[in-house]
Amino acid sequence: MTTAVIAGVGPGLGESVARRFAAEGCEIGLLARSGDYLDDLAAALPTDAVGVATDLCDPADIAAAFDRVRDELGPVDVLVNHASAASWTGLRDTSLDAFDRAYEVGPRADFLCSQAAVRDMLDGDRPADERGGTVIFTGATTSVRGREGAAGFSMAKFGSRGLAESMARELGPEGVHVAHVVIDGGILGPEVETDTPEEYLDPDAISDSYWHLVQQDRSAWTLELDLRPHVEDF
Amino acid sequence: MTTAVIAGVGPGLGESVARRFAAEGCEIGLLARSGDYLDDLAAALPTDAVGVATDLCDPADIAAAFDRVRDELGPVDVLVNHASAASWTGLRDTSLDAFDRAYEVGPRADFLCSQAAVRDMLDGDRPADERGGTVIFTGATTSVRGREGAAGFSMAKFGSRGLAESMARELGPEGVHVAHVVIDGGILGPEVETDTPEEYLDPDAISDSYWHLVQQDRSAWTLELDLRPHVEDF
Amino acid sequence: MTTAVIAGVGPGLGESVARRFAAEGCEIGLLARSGDYLDDLAAALPTDAVGVATDLCDPADIAAAFDRVRDELGPVDVLVNHASAASWTGLRDTSLDAFDRAYEVGPRADFLCSQAAVRDMLDGDRPADERGGTVIFTGATTSVRGREGAAGFSMAKFGSRGLAESMARELGPEGVHVAHVVIDGGILGPEVETDTPEEYLDPDAISDSYWHLVQQDRSAWTLELDLRPHVEDF
Amino acid sequence: MTTAVIAGVGPGLGESVARRFAAEGCEIGLLARSGDYLDDLAAALPTDAVGVATDLCDPADIAAAFDRVRDELGPVDVLVNHASAASWTGLRDTSLDAFDRAYEVGPRADFLCSQAAVRDMLDGDRPADERGGTVIFTGATTSVRGREGAAGFSMAKFGSRGLAESMARELGPEGVHVAHVVIDGGILGPEVETDTPEEYLDPDAISDSYWHLVQQDRSAWTLELDLRPHVEDF
Repeated sequence: MTTAVIAGVGPGLGESVARRFAAEGCEIGLLARSGDYLDDLAAALPTDAVGVATDLCDPADIAAAFDRVRDELGPVDVLVNHASAASWTGLRDTSLDAFDRAYEVGPRADFLCSQAAVRDMLDGDRPADERGGTVIFTGATTSVRGREGAAGFSMAKFGSRGLAESMARELGPEGVHVAHVVIDGGILGPEVETDTPEEYLDPDAISDSYWHLVQQDRSAWTLELDLRPHVEDF
Repeated sequence: MTTAVIAGVGPGLGESVARRFAAEGCEIGLLARSGDYLDDLAAALPTDAVGVATDLCDPADIAAAFDRVRDELGPVDVLVNHASAASWTGLRDTSLDAFDRAYEVGPRADFLCSQAAVRDMLDGDRPADERGGTVIFTGATTSVRGREGAAGFSMAKFGSRGLAESMARELGPEGVHVAHVVIDGGILGPEVETDTPEEYLDPDAISDSYWHLVQQDRSAWTLELDLRPHVEDF
Repeated sequence: MTTAVIAGVGPGLGESVARRFAAEGCEIGLLARSGDYLDDLAAALPTDAVGVATDLCDPADIAAAFDRVRDELGPVDVLVNHASAASWTGLRDTSLDAFDRAYEVGPRADFLCSQAAVRDMLDGDRPADERGGTVIFTGATTSVRGREGAAGFSMAKFGSRGLAESMARELGPEGVHVAHVVIDGGILGPEVETDTPEEYLDPDAISDSYWHLVQQDRSAWTLELDLRPHVEDF
Repeated sequence: MTTAVIAGVGPGLGESVARRFAAEGCEIGLLARSGDYLDDLAAALPTDAVGVATDLCDPADIAAAFDRVRDELGPVDVLVNHASAASWTGLRDTSLDAFDRAYEVGPRADFLCSQAAVRDMLDGDRPADERGGTVIFTGATTSVRGREGAAGFSMAKFGSRGLAESMARELGPEGVHVAHVVIDGGILGPEVETDTPEEYLDPDAISDSYWHLVQQDRSAWTLELDLRPHVEDF
């Protein structure tokens, strides 16, 4: 049984990934601030799932959340690093607090969650043929092109991508597949009201590629792919 | 019924893609120099398939091959641009003939095959909801990093990638998905003798990602992904 | 008179840049931990210069340092973001403290120094034709290719590059030139003992390109360039 | 005395480079179609210069042109690959002739000129300490981002960049500096009529960076830099 943790779940892509991975038979750990939302989502999934109200800026919270997932569902096999804190201010208008927060919710939370998950994936107590796993980073256009008016977000998304590349090179030979997905467009979450839905990425279509990454044979792993609507101007 | 053309088929990746796409129900057009090999492969596929001995350097040959595929299997829905001519010489040791040949078998053949296939994909005689298709380019490490001692190959692989990017932007809004796959490692074709097969890409694992590209929903298309063995040093 | 601040000066590249910019007539502000070293270097420069012992992890220290430079030399025209904290451990062996420190000495110090310097560069009290300036980031191979066994450093160098790109797009139209230099190789600092100096970058040769960036006309500014020894394998 | 050849000279950047390199003391070989224009330009330069009417699609013409430069000015030290044939049509509207022409004027001419020039630069008859040289490629936005509606141009500019990278790795250790300049914006040539000249690159500002590349010490060579107006949206 595969255990997948999604760090930073909300209605939209995080929830879609949870539903898709559960539909494929994964047990699911859900980490986010809102405990009520997570409980409802966990209850709606067809497999065992646990929601843990977690402040991803707090190392102790993250450690406790992974402990609880491990206790209830077993060691983690798949991690989706999905959190980020976008603030739309340039260098001149960004406070140090906002810049720090972009770091904390972004690459720092990715780092802490990855350490916890990879410890499980490569745990020497597991039979050798059950070791390994997958870590997927949710990237954005800004991960590969620093964005005017988003100084902290540009730093954070680049930073997470650098971490992902470093991890891929370290962990690939150990059997952990690290992948970074550049989502190049707006996601059609439930909060979006639009007359032109074709200009957005359908969360379920993104989840389809996330699941493909989990399924890839280790002889042909992807480090990075981009995703965008077919009408996107890029 | 989906019709897929693979331009540049041989034992190894091209054949694997043909078998996989046929297993998924595609009818297959096979283009390469060796007619006998293609006939045998076509006969071994579980769906209708046609092999056409084709010199991909010859525009008339390419036109005739697409005509024959169209006559026998119907308009083309999927194209895999898979041919390339690698020569391992640097600037100083490359003849103009070898440089020209890298162009002709590479980006020029990609261009001619793409024109023929896209004409079918966007043919105004097809019902609007059946228009569209997929063009996949088989790239290499050298597509994104010019290689010492491979002047013509570097020019050609970069050139094909530039063509692919231009096509993706032109054709995406029309419903044609153009994708470029960077294969970053050696492929475990039947000619490879090795004691360390894990250092190579399994052609069937690559084909799995090719088929994923064909299946992607148009709300979340990939332009480029990389593939490499999990132990690859990169 | 041009005032240049170099944040993170030590023997090697930082000192070479200070000497070169002073030789071109700039007044120089030197920021680093070691006050004695900075005093000696400042005294050795042919123009007015001030060394300020600064902990680049401390926002108040940075603010005080820029105040002192401004008081003694006038508003800042050029900033070189040169500090970084490289630690050579992978995901599994990196402490949270080390990861945080990579952030603090890297992109966070770049952010704080850039805010202070750009405030001067675009100060409304300056005559309009004296506004503007240059911010140069010292990058590394790891800025563009996440490095195995350097999780924090990969995050930090990518993060700084993301910040630089965001700043370039925000500030270019205002007359501030932001440039990021990818130094792809080892620097021949005074601490290096080698029989093959040609395999290293000469700091004075790097400084030559830094000065070129300062001198570029605003009609043709460079955002990024790479530098490496001619024998480097890359 | 340094001999520089500029392949593809016209009013605008090519002429600016010729004037700048001559002002720095280089003797100049000018290659382009229009012999009269070249004669006038050669006569206007302050150093010895020779214009050779050359069809850069014709290998014999190129060989003859380099022979003439070599006879009149001595062996070549610097080459600027500056020609390209932009045609603004997408895949569906590009003729095979236009696609071939983009190849011939672009990467194929770069290849032929580079072979001729590098032969001089590394000629065993020259004293060892006089061997070496510089090859600069004039790239464009389209060199790094395939452009919608410019299928042949995208192929050609990517192809030239791939060739440049391959050459840089082959020839750097031999003392030949290969550099690729991404010009990301419109050039303010004499044919441009505009009320907003600040939105264009001044050819003389570009030439300044070209000359910097020629001057770089071999301990810190640049493979690629970008250039754009400070107000450019990118």
